[in-house]
Amino acid sequence: MNISRIIFLSAAILAASSATSRAENSADALQVPAKSLPVPTEDISPEMQAFIKAPLNPDWNKLWKTADEARAYANVQAAGVMKGIQGLKDRMGVTVEAQTMDGVKVYVITPSTIAPENKDKVIIHTHGGCYVLFPGEAGTTEALMMAGLGHYKVISVDYRMPPEAYFPAALDDAVTVYKSVIKTTPPKNVGFVGTSAGGALTMEMVLRAREQGLPMPGAIAPGTPMSDVTKHGDAFYTNEMVDNILVSRDGFCDASVNIYAKGHDLADPLLSPVNGDMHGFPPAILTTGTRDLLLSNTVRAQRKLRRAGVDAELVVFEGQSHAQYQFDDRVPETKEAFGEIAAFFGKHLGH
Amino acid sequence: MNISRIIFLSAAILAASSATSRAENSADALQVPAKSLPVPTEDISPEMQAFIKAPLNPDWNKLWKTADEARAYANVQAAGVMKGIQGLKDRMGVTVEAQTMDGVKVYVITPSTIAPENKDKVIIHTHGGCYVLFPGEAGTTEALMMAGLGHYKVISVDYRMPPEAYFPAALDDAVTVYKSVIKTTPPKNVGFVGTSAGGALTMEMVLRAREQGLPMPGAIAPGTPMSDVTKHGDAFYTNEMVDNILVSRDGFCDASVNIYAKGHDLADPLLSPVNGDMHGFPPAILTTGTRDLLLSNTVRAQRKLRRAGVDAELVVFEGQSHAQYQFDDRVPETKEAFGEIAAFFGKHLGH
Repeated sequence: MNISRIIFLSAAILAASSATSRAENSADALQVPAKSLPVPTEDISPEMQAFIKAPLNPDWNKLWKTADEARAYANVQAAGVMKGIQGLKDRMGVTVEAQTMDGVKVYVITPSTIAPENKDKVIIHTHGGCYVLFPGEAGTTEALMMAGLGHYKVISVDYRMPPEAYFPAALDDAVTVYKSVIKTTPPKNVGFVGTSAGGALTMEMVLRAREQGLPMPGAIAPGTPMSDVTKHGDAFYTNEMVDNILVSRDGFCDASVNIYAKGHDLADPLLSPVNGDMHGFPPAILTTGTRDLLLSNTVRAQRKLRRAGVDAELVVFEGQSHAQYQFDDRVPETKEAFGEIAAFFGKHLGH
Repeated sequence: MNISRIIFLSAAILAASSATSRAENSADALQVPAKSLPVPTEDISPEMQAFIKAPLNPDWNKLWKTADEARAYANVQAAGVMKGIQGLKDRMGVTVEAQTMDGVKVYVITPSTIAPENKDKVIIHTHGGCYVLFPGEAGTTEALMMAGLGHYKVISVDYRMPPEAYFPAALDDAVTVYKSVIKTTPPKNVGFVGTSAGGALTMEMVLRAREQGLPMPGAIAPGTPMSDVTKHGDAFYTNEMVDNILVSRDGFCDASVNIYAKGHDLADPLLSPVNGDMHGFPPAILTTGTRDLLLSNTVRAQRKLRRAGVDAELVVFEGQSHAQYQFDDRVPETKEAFGEIAAFFGKHLGH
């Protein structure tokens, strides 16, 4: 049967093949020629186009071998972030207070206005950065936007990272904060939000909470989650050298995870939550972009959630690479992304 | 500011750039080297892997110049489909009756069991095939699955195609069937389903219905819709030579649309519905795959719908090229796709 006859053909006679691993099926690999990608413009704001047309992140292949090397880079990067943080706080109209909750460092972010129906709600934020980047207040930018654009009180977890601590320290700290919050706030009124490693943490926190017999939160918002750090996920290949932030599955983020994991099995659902059992998860909204290296691992997570009967929504932005929907609060697509998340929390928290 | 400092950085200082067309921004084009894509296997059934690892559709660059050429190809292809149609009907447990409704040829498909709550519901199906392929009963495969897997009565529109008729004949016929159906069925009990050109038609029908002052249907399910036939959509580039069905924006489907449009403006929302005003649209569920050449034009349609306040859900299958979720009823992902659509119709029809 000629393949022309099976285009769009639902009733095609299909020779079932047995599943083979990537290693076994290299003969079936698809060879894609070099190509030139114009900057997409339709339905994309000029501000977002500027991010999309930026050259490849020149540091994508910084393959640090030690936690100290990673931290030295993180410190320089964080100093850069901090230069813009007061402007962001001002635009968001939020106040920020550094505190500790049961020994874990957090930033408590309060917007100038909270809608009456959100006054008893709390969002816990886990920042991104491959488990090694954005120490201290530099990790709060997404939390500031969640508070300022979404009008919720947000607690951003300044979880321990290498070289201070390794897996599962980030998760332990985040779950400690959750336990602390639900002493005074009904669990159904609590949402989790985070992007990249922070997106993975929102799911890992649910897995760990269930393990420990804790009640489920009301909803979660995993943004382009690092849901599989074992290099499975087709977009690791299709979007290689297309995503201008992560660029490659063999880049700085992979090196970072290996430092954080410190030899722990990367397939553990507490590091690769797509491998976890998602039955009983709270409603989830997932966000990614068509050029995102983690496009596959976002949609795989949504499929796993929905196969487990969970109400899981998916937002995919045209042309965006990894996490670009939360780079700048002044970009229309950023307002849109946090508008979607806030509406989702509004619909599900408390119920 | 070094780009390393803006990775994941929400507060980055952003130099706004003015929007430029693709033609103007070729200097900003991203050069992507040749690559080899292994067959993705994680969370993908062996049956679907067989479709994913098939070589590029050898007929992707059949660039027919006349309607007669296209029809000659369509007839051969349809004959191939028809060889499998009885088996599909048997597996789906449906009966099929050829009829006309107000002069339009249709196939009325009735499943052996219809849940009591679905007895007063009707799904109108518009088949795919770039507005020139799958004449006659060969166009019913997706409708058979919708009826058999989703347990709804389905009316599949055998709309006129070139060389018999040109734009807007397909749309006219589909809207005629809708008008006929709502003589006896409340509009809120009617759903529209279709893939590719059929997915675009589900949206074009809503635009046309609103234009004519007709009531809205209860819900629509645009599958990987040809929502923009002007070659806008980033995945036309990123998934070029990656999608093994459509392969290229300059392939058979583009040639087909030009034949159907017969000189009509391709940007007209009745040919490129992403350009339409989507306020007041019924709830929608959209389906695509990460390798789909129409990934962008599916997610753009979802964004447009949600920006217009419409409840629009998105399903993206890992590794799939264009329309592969509806190639074979025996594939687990096909059951999953129609399960999602049926559940969505179940939630929204009648309300």
